[in-house]
Amino acid sequence: MTDYDKFLSPTGRQLQESAIRRMGTVVARTTDLVSFAAGYPDPASFPWDELRAIANELLSGTDGTVLQYGPTRGYRPLIETILGVLEERNIHTTLEDVAITSGSQQGLDLVARVLISPGDVVLVELPSYTGAISAFKNMQAELVGVKQDEDGINLEDLDVVLQRERKAGKRVNLLYLVPNFQNPTGLLLSLEKRLTLLEWAERRDVLIVEDDPYGALYFDDVTSERDTRPIRADDRHGRVIYLSTFSKTLAPGLRVGWMVAPAALIERFDTAKQSVDLMSGSLDQRLVHEAVRRGVLPKLAPGLRELYRRKRDVMEGALRRELGDRLTWPAPKGGFFLWATLPDGVDDNTLLARALEQRLVFVIGSAFYVNGTGHNRIRLSFSAPSAERIEEGVRRLAGVMGGPDKVRPTGRASLPVAT
Amino acid sequence: MTDYDKFLSPTGRQLQESAIRRMGTVVARTTDLVSFAAGYPDPASFPWDELRAIANELLSGTDGTVLQYGPTRGYRPLIETILGVLEERNIHTTLEDVAITSGSQQGLDLVARVLISPGDVVLVELPSYTGAISAFKNMQAELVGVKQDEDGINLEDLDVVLQRERKAGKRVNLLYLVPNFQNPTGLLLSLEKRLTLLEWAERRDVLIVEDDPYGALYFDDVTSERDTRPIRADDRHGRVIYLSTFSKTLAPGLRVGWMVAPAALIERFDTAKQSVDLMSGSLDQRLVHEAVRRGVLPKLAPGLRELYRRKRDVMEGALRRELGDRLTWPAPKGGFFLWATLPDGVDDNTLLARALEQRLVFVIGSAFYVNGTGHNRIRLSFSAPSAERIEEGVRRLAGVMGGPDKVRPTGRASLPVAT
Repeated sequence: MTDYDKFLSPTGRQLQESAIRRMGTVVARTTDLVSFAAGYPDPASFPWDELRAIANELLSGTDGTVLQYGPTRGYRPLIETILGVLEERNIHTTLEDVAITSGSQQGLDLVARVLISPGDVVLVELPSYTGAISAFKNMQAELVGVKQDEDGINLEDLDVVLQRERKAGKRVNLLYLVPNFQNPTGLLLSLEKRLTLLEWAERRDVLIVEDDPYGALYFDDVTSERDTRPIRADDRHGRVIYLSTFSKTLAPGLRVGWMVAPAALIERFDTAKQSVDLMSGSLDQRLVHEAVRRGVLPKLAPGLRELYRRKRDVMEGALRRELGDRLTWPAPKGGFFLWATLPDGVDDNTLLARALEQRLVFVIGSAFYVNGTGHNRIRLSFSAPSAERIEEGVRRLAGVMGGPDKVRPTGRASLPVAT
Repeated sequence: MTDYDKFLSPTGRQLQESAIRRMGTVVARTTDLVSFAAGYPDPASFPWDELRAIANELLSGTDGTVLQYGPTRGYRPLIETILGVLEERNIHTTLEDVAITSGSQQGLDLVARVLISPGDVVLVELPSYTGAISAFKNMQAELVGVKQDEDGINLEDLDVVLQRERKAGKRVNLLYLVPNFQNPTGLLLSLEKRLTLLEWAERRDVLIVEDDPYGALYFDDVTSERDTRPIRADDRHGRVIYLSTFSKTLAPGLRVGWMVAPAALIERFDTAKQSVDLMSGSLDQRLVHEAVRRGVLPKLAPGLRELYRRKRDVMEGALRRELGDRLTWPAPKGGFFLWATLPDGVDDNTLLARALEQRLVFVIGSAFYVNGTGHNRIRLSFSAPSAERIEEGVRRLAGVMGGPDKVRPTGRASLPVAT
């Protein structure tokens, strides 16, 4: 029997499995499971009819390029269409600054490859998106967390942490942020902080990686489009690398995201992508291009905002009814997630183990923390399940937690850890 | 103006642009160009009608998973279908040993990430596929070349090189090979050598990366399916990582490839892929799955072999007629490429610069050599252009080279280098 461990590279040895992806495996195996785990969009919202009609035209065979290899940078008319999408987000840029990626996860990976040297410190929010954490760690980055307030990252802590790490001799070039309806907290970074961050990045010579998958999904009872204005919109000094995607608005099964960055960096990302996957899918890019060109996004967006706002309402209502004040959370102003704080003494792993026994799954809070904390939190995603399944899931959660009156805190070691 | 160079990682700084991808950019810009550069399949051969019918069914909206996120490992029924494809290639394996990749280029990249440590030596053929060279170099591998004979890699040289590198203190774990109709030479590795390689790998404790995109495209006037038997088919000790793709048989615009490896390694590749792109495209995987399930591959394959064999005939005939013995090449037994040796004193870069002036493009031989040689070779791809365009392209080549009688060798420095 060959021993493969000895063949592994440093990256191969220390690869981190994504807690969210692992939950996906559990979901696939269990019947009658309610999943609050993965941030999947609701497939009923996908523009099936439009995509079917477009696919029918594209696959007529009159244009061979639809299924052919194409440029690594992406299908040029799609990039031009994205420039229009960016205009609506107040980002005025040019072809040279945009590249198509295979989902925005690939954007994170390309950033990691091109900009992270082993041992570099990357600053991230406490908590932060696990897919970014993995991508950066897989390039041997050291991730250092910065506190968040209700209106997003704490700027004082940010500068203290940066200075401390640099004083300790660390290279610190990157700050990673999800300003709109952050994954996992659902928080919205205030406009004032966005502008201050740009000044800070210029003063401290740092690049900001702005990840914006959820910006279009604001809930207009508590916020507005104006509040989602990307940091990149006011970037005068080329400090921002902006990532976005069609995964939450059209469909994630079409792997089409994009990055906006100074042309000098886009060139590097492009070259890196050549050896990573040559190009993103041609048919996927053409489907997205035609959908956007035909105005599917503005037609779809109000309905999506309404859909997810209603699901949030269902989840918040059910949680209050079933659990009273046993759980607390910041009100989600958009996006897919509710970020709940557990009662004193209840541990995320323990609770998940119990929940799984009741066919309920969510993501443990500690998966999103780079500093080993977060065991008193869980992320509940309301985007994919129906209203009925959300109600059912919350009932199961209440069953596990003991309802609004019965407090049943459990020590960490009292049950086997499920993950 | 921000200086971005200082932010680059070691990978970011030394990224190698693919010579083939660069040629693609030239192609996109020039009108009336004949391209013998990129190894594109002929889009007329894509199963348009079948894919259109399948897309129509898949996009009905009755199955939400068609456009949803899915498992990183791949769509399970597709993996099961691939097990059948592998059976036909005499590879008997199980679900645990297979993972879907976003084209086989991603397989190369995952191999590089998981198995190459900076400074490792990776053994490759002289010449070898540029996409593999880039993927390995981007993980800071040192590539060392091994001679090839008419029947593939030279086994004596292979062992001498391995021993020399290990004696010099290098870690040498990987040998990369394209046994069937190699890119760029079109050579076929003999069955005897395949078996000997397996013994050698076990004796020397090396893993073989077997890249097999062209195996189905054998030309039956000079060879047979039997001669394409994968090395992996006889691998008793788990020494082979086997990569293949649907890009040359169905369509490359659907980014669906796969890798076969011992389960312990597949686990690592899977985890690496989580942070690389989460998953390959769902719709692409479903389209491929349905096409294979409906028997499109065996229906298509004889026609593809005939199509490319005829194109090879057209190119060989035109080259002989227009250039006599000014060019020599090993007869392509399958695949997409003719690997030509230039007359004494003619340099690949110089010839390409002249060819571009005549709206003809090909790939310079030196791009495929990791040892700085190969300037007396060019790779001519006959797969994409029509018979008429192949004739026209060869006429232009003859015009540039001066025809069968007029020898016009040029020194390297006599013309500006185009690339």
